[in-house]
Amino acid sequence: MLTKETKIRVRYSETDQMQVVYHSRFLEYFEAGRTDSLRALGMTYKSIEEQGVVMAIVQAECKYVKPARYDDLLTIKTSIHELPKNHRIEFHQDAYNESGQLLVRGKVVLYFLDKVTFTKTTIPDALHTTLQPFFEKKENA
Amino acid sequence: MLTKETKIRVRYSETDQMQVVYHSRFLEYFEAGRTDSLRALGMTYKSIEEQGVVMAIVQAECKYVKPARYDDLLTIKTSIHELPKNHRIEFHQDAYNESGQLLVRGKVVLYFLDKVTFTKTTIPDALHTTLQPFFEKKENA
Amino acid sequence: MLTKETKIRVRYSETDQMQVVYHSRFLEYFEAGRTDSLRALGMTYKSIEEQGVVMAIVQAECKYVKPARYDDLLTIKTSIHELPKNHRIEFHQDAYNESGQLLVRGKVVLYFLDKVTFTKTTIPDALHTTLQPFFEKKENA
Amino acid sequence: MLTKETKIRVRYSETDQMQVVYHSRFLEYFEAGRTDSLRALGMTYKSIEEQGVVMAIVQAECKYVKPARYDDLLTIKTSIHELPKNHRIEFHQDAYNESGQLLVRGKVVLYFLDKVTFTKTTIPDALHTTLQPFFEKKENA
Repeated sequence: MLTKETKIRVRYSETDQMQVVYHSRFLEYFEAGRTDSLRALGMTYKSIEEQGVVMAIVQAECKYVKPARYDDLLTIKTSIHELPKNHRIEFHQDAYNESGQLLVRGKVVLYFLDKVTFTKTTIPDALHTTLQPFFEKKENA
Repeated sequence: MLTKETKIRVRYSETDQMQVVYHSRFLEYFEAGRTDSLRALGMTYKSIEEQGVVMAIVQAECKYVKPARYDDLLTIKTSIHELPKNHRIEFHQDAYNESGQLLVRGKVVLYFLDKVTFTKTTIPDALHTTLQPFFEKKENA
Repeated sequence: MLTKETKIRVRYSETDQMQVVYHSRFLEYFEAGRTDSLRALGMTYKSIEEQGVVMAIVQAECKYVKPARYDDLLTIKTSIHELPKNHRIEFHQDAYNESGQLLVRGKVVLYFLDKVTFTKTTIPDALHTTLQPFFEKKENA
Repeated sequence: MLTKETKIRVRYSETDQMQVVYHSRFLEYFEAGRTDSLRALGMTYKSIEEQGVVMAIVQAECKYVKPARYDDLLTIKTSIHELPKNHRIEFHQDAYNESGQLLVRGKVVLYFLDKVTFTKTTIPDALHTTLQPFFEKKENA
């Protein structure tokens, strides 16, 4: 398993008249969390696209537990539970406030697609190689 | 069961560099669809808030089947399968393109909350009364 | 001179915690107004891009007079005061509420750019031909 | 004169199909820059609102010089050229890329308004006191 944390400060533009962060914004925060997690691993999503592969979202789920508010400093926890193979990758992503309270629990499934044809392709080798060490059995640990 | 349709034209600002509508935008379209559906029933969500009740999203799920593109004229189908009672209401919302192809299948669950205390409250009477006729058994039809 | 009107219903996602429409949203409304105005003239901005030309914004100005609110039905008035030539086109765009009150006064300047090289190009012939009749001197009227 | 810098990483959701950051997003970046600059001075905009004053935008201007792209790490420079008095404050805000190239030059004018009545009020004392030292004549320097 692999987990990375990203800090995001809530912008005024991300609130709505209910005085809380508008619900769809968490999908944007989660995307920023995925980008940031890849960078922490020494890759960029940008470089993946430059190599002709896009990661397209095929499923997204959010459970909203507590509201986030303007100027909150959120922690987005981005986890991968299983080493992705073939065309599919699944992220578990949760948002916490500064008190450590869970605000939103999310799951996002993406497919690796050919950038031109938008047909399924396999996970790029460089990404697979980067992720693999986090999922190796520690048999003699 | 109750179903309403809303037309939404995709704006340039709603696309991303993958040349498709950014995935979180569908949650905004679905919200516009809910507002529009209430209006078609003779109510406004605005009036519900003015009476001291907010409808807060507690769960949202999207399955992305096909991409939407700039300038597409989408149809958002907003359905309620069961007459809501107590504090909970569930919407099934799907997006279709002009060829009638399903693009995104969504489900959104909201709670009726007191606008000030953000604690659960029951569905406003006026809304319940408006929805009820769509869920009556047609025994002698 | 050429003027077209577009109706836009304010979405909940477009409000902020000040209970008004977030200021940058008017630039999105203006863009929707430009797209809609072209369509009313029998063209689409989409077709312009498909022919290899993008219209890139080089200047935008807004004066905010009165706030817009959730569920307001806005009228966006999109005007062109002078027939564009070369690589530059200027739009005057204002937002009004249902009482006819001016909310925002805007001006947006765009350049016609080659889609691939992002260098200046001239206004596409088809667009120039479409706009020309609105700027002819009515000498014997 | 007072100048502060804020770093902002461009999110995928902020791009459009022209492969660049959508123009209205810079107004959101500028707002984040203002919030961040106040925080660097030991204040928060949040606390200003909690004291019953909102800062409403009455004018915004942007000149777009070069495009920003996905994953760019932008620097937003936020400057105040004159000590604000009465109800008006003016920010000059520019966006630069990592090579130090100017991307967008902006100016944003805000009014201090009573949060409830939305009528003009004067700059809060605490904010005025915080800003004053940056605008004192250095007569004997």
